[in-house]
Amino acid sequence: MKHFLSINDLDDLKGAVRDALALKQAPYAYQDLGKNKALGAIFLNPSLRTRISTQRAAQMLGMSSIVHNAGQDGWNLEFDDGKVMNGDKSEHIKDAVAVLGEYFDILAVRCFPSLTDRNADYQEQVLSKFVEYSGKPVISLESATGHPLQALADMMTIANAAPKRPKVVLSWAPHVRTLPQSVPNSFAQAALAMDYELVITHPPGYELSPEFTDGAEICYDQKLAFKHADIIYAKNWSSYEPYGTVLEVHENWTIDASKMAVTNNAGFMHCLPIRRNLIADDSVLDSPQSLIYQQAGHRVFACMHILKTILEQS
Amino acid sequence: MKHFLSINDLDDLKGAVRDALALKQAPYAYQDLGKNKALGAIFLNPSLRTRISTQRAAQMLGMSSIVHNAGQDGWNLEFDDGKVMNGDKSEHIKDAVAVLGEYFDILAVRCFPSLTDRNADYQEQVLSKFVEYSGKPVISLESATGHPLQALADMMTIANAAPKRPKVVLSWAPHVRTLPQSVPNSFAQAALAMDYELVITHPPGYELSPEFTDGAEICYDQKLAFKHADIIYAKNWSSYEPYGTVLEVHENWTIDASKMAVTNNAGFMHCLPIRRNLIADDSVLDSPQSLIYQQAGHRVFACMHILKTILEQS
Amino acid sequence: MKHFLSINDLDDLKGAVRDALALKQAPYAYQDLGKNKALGAIFLNPSLRTRISTQRAAQMLGMSSIVHNAGQDGWNLEFDDGKVMNGDKSEHIKDAVAVLGEYFDILAVRCFPSLTDRNADYQEQVLSKFVEYSGKPVISLESATGHPLQALADMMTIANAAPKRPKVVLSWAPHVRTLPQSVPNSFAQAALAMDYELVITHPPGYELSPEFTDGAEICYDQKLAFKHADIIYAKNWSSYEPYGTVLEVHENWTIDASKMAVTNNAGFMHCLPIRRNLIADDSVLDSPQSLIYQQAGHRVFACMHILKTILEQS
Repeated sequence: MKHFLSINDLDDLKGAVRDALALKQAPYAYQDLGKNKALGAIFLNPSLRTRISTQRAAQMLGMSSIVHNAGQDGWNLEFDDGKVMNGDKSEHIKDAVAVLGEYFDILAVRCFPSLTDRNADYQEQVLSKFVEYSGKPVISLESATGHPLQALADMMTIANAAPKRPKVVLSWAPHVRTLPQSVPNSFAQAALAMDYELVITHPPGYELSPEFTDGAEICYDQKLAFKHADIIYAKNWSSYEPYGTVLEVHENWTIDASKMAVTNNAGFMHCLPIRRNLIADDSVLDSPQSLIYQQAGHRVFACMHILKTILEQS
Repeated sequence: MKHFLSINDLDDLKGAVRDALALKQAPYAYQDLGKNKALGAIFLNPSLRTRISTQRAAQMLGMSSIVHNAGQDGWNLEFDDGKVMNGDKSEHIKDAVAVLGEYFDILAVRCFPSLTDRNADYQEQVLSKFVEYSGKPVISLESATGHPLQALADMMTIANAAPKRPKVVLSWAPHVRTLPQSVPNSFAQAALAMDYELVITHPPGYELSPEFTDGAEICYDQKLAFKHADIIYAKNWSSYEPYGTVLEVHENWTIDASKMAVTNNAGFMHCLPIRRNLIADDSVLDSPQSLIYQQAGHRVFACMHILKTILEQS
Repeated sequence: MKHFLSINDLDDLKGAVRDALALKQAPYAYQDLGKNKALGAIFLNPSLRTRISTQRAAQMLGMSSIVHNAGQDGWNLEFDDGKVMNGDKSEHIKDAVAVLGEYFDILAVRCFPSLTDRNADYQEQVLSKFVEYSGKPVISLESATGHPLQALADMMTIANAAPKRPKVVLSWAPHVRTLPQSVPNSFAQAALAMDYELVITHPPGYELSPEFTDGAEICYDQKLAFKHADIIYAKNWSSYEPYGTVLEVHENWTIDASKMAVTNNAGFMHCLPIRRNLIADDSVLDSPQSLIYQQAGHRVFACMHILKTILEQS
């Protein structure tokens, strides 16, 4: 694994989950591995969990890290090639990335989708520039189409909580903004790679790209989908076709206790931040089945596993 | 001491002052104590001194620290329970805090008062959520009603500069904005706990909450209060009753050389930042009696003492 | 060298270039030198390269560093003495700097010019306050009139790439904003101190302050200047007289392949960020002669040399 841009970059996802869970038990077992190595974590979008868990993972490996908030520092990047840069963009991404490659041993980057140009987003036009121009290993901290570190943390959480081959249900839930498909894409990809039984439930029109969901059962009846589920994974996303829109939905897709009641006492998951009483009710989030904080905690060790793997290879 | 939310959380304030002054003499004597421990410092409000002194204290103890600027990263928190979160708040404080508790060994938080809802402020509604939901020791970096790290640094400064039982005068001084009561509250509490002779002087109407000032003499005549003082501590605050207002004041409360002249060659203190020639004249701030920079420097060792105490107990 | 505010603060520039290039070969050879020392890097203006390279330099020396973004944290400073601070400025620079001096062993500061008041800018009114009030060694991270860390990195790059006594051409190039003279000032000063043949080419009216350029040849014909050049250093700046203006220029001063063709296969340099196809064409920037990324990489070791020199003296 040179880069970690997608769950598919892991040769052995099950092994990665086992290793990440072992790191959780002994977080300082590799604290010399990162000595004299530096991670640059570049945020083109806001972050709480990812920002902190990435820094913590680097610290535990004895690696120095620097976070750069691209937006805040007024770093207005040009993404198109060949332009005469006489407008408001002060630096071309290829130059910014090449310089970051000079300063760090590993780069990590967060770059959300536009949600307006599906081709550009699904070609990962920003993330791919980091790979092309930095000359260094690149880790996705959530890109236009995926959030593989989240998915790895999710698989750790399921492996910890659920039976050998659980029934996992990824459920769309309401939101007030237009959100990316990154988290559900990577979650579906990972659950299928783990060979879990995956059901995706959402209102008609919210089908995700088949590239990520092929092999999952699609079900438009939320309560039917929940039956006998071992894990409920809630998430909002905007539509893939037409791209990036919020469709009108008349039924109530908020996850509440009555819906959870038909599951197999399922664990409840969400990547956070969560809109309470919109995505899921307080009664679900504050129940003993809620795994949301454990899931957030696993982000540190998911990232540690990836950093460790890259460091061991270099 | 599990948490440090108030000067009252210190069993032995005099001992704490002695220990913090000893740390100033040997700042690296405990640099292994914080090994493999992480401090998360969360700022819901801006900061210079507190931000830097907290990080320096952690570094000197060999502890890693991460600063998170909640406001800047667009982290719009919901504080009310039970709300349907379909507005502009993207995360509930209970979830954010629980996640931070997953990532850090100790949390420190700055959360200013609203200055509009006295009940909410004096119940410390934000700070108390950190205690309730993080599951980790919490340190106040200035909350709605107190600034105990500042007060501890202040007591170090007085112990260094003044006679055994000094006459300490806390003087209101003018400002152009509506400021919290946190610093004077904690200062009064600490000076009384040190058994100093405390006089608080301010225009009528600026009485602080008796919960913090009981035992101090209140004097409405600034120059009379200054007589024979060993320490003058200047600070502006808004009124407690009615809450959070700036009252009209006709007399000149700016501290100048003529007022300092009636003191017992008193040391001059202020927590900074200070509005020069409004709170106090340049001639006072730049005089040999000014202790303002020493006071700011003591913030590092006040914080070290608190971190060290918490680390030693865990 | 107590402070590093100008290239002139280096007694032996050639020796500094040699030492910085040696640090590039063995970046961790001095990782105990900075133990228990702290650098405070204060940015009154935005930064990518300087911010990161400064932190990396400190890390490699085993020194802790804290970056403070003055603007972002709403730190509105008063620079004038004697003012009654009843407006929107919440802290006087002399107090802020004195406090920073309490917290750090070395201070570094970025403070751009106003470009409106030449006297104030060329007297370095902000940088000089850091020297006056901090009581600690101060490093310029680009000030009103100079960028000596950039110039040191530039000299490393030329020493690496060009013959013994190269012909170096500093060429003005177009931009859409009003830019400081800091980079060309320090570059000219350094190239002359290295005893290089320096030609400065720009449209009439863009003459820099003679204080920095005395000894260089000024040439208003860009293509004539480029003949037999070993190094082309591109940079925009605003006029010195009248101060801080963008003059109308009718000729095309963008650097393209046809202009580079008359040089002695010259290396191309720019301090970045660069406006592509405005300062210089893609064909120049992406050619094998382009030294721009190497130049940016050298910023780490230029800063390391300065920190190391200051640490060794203290």
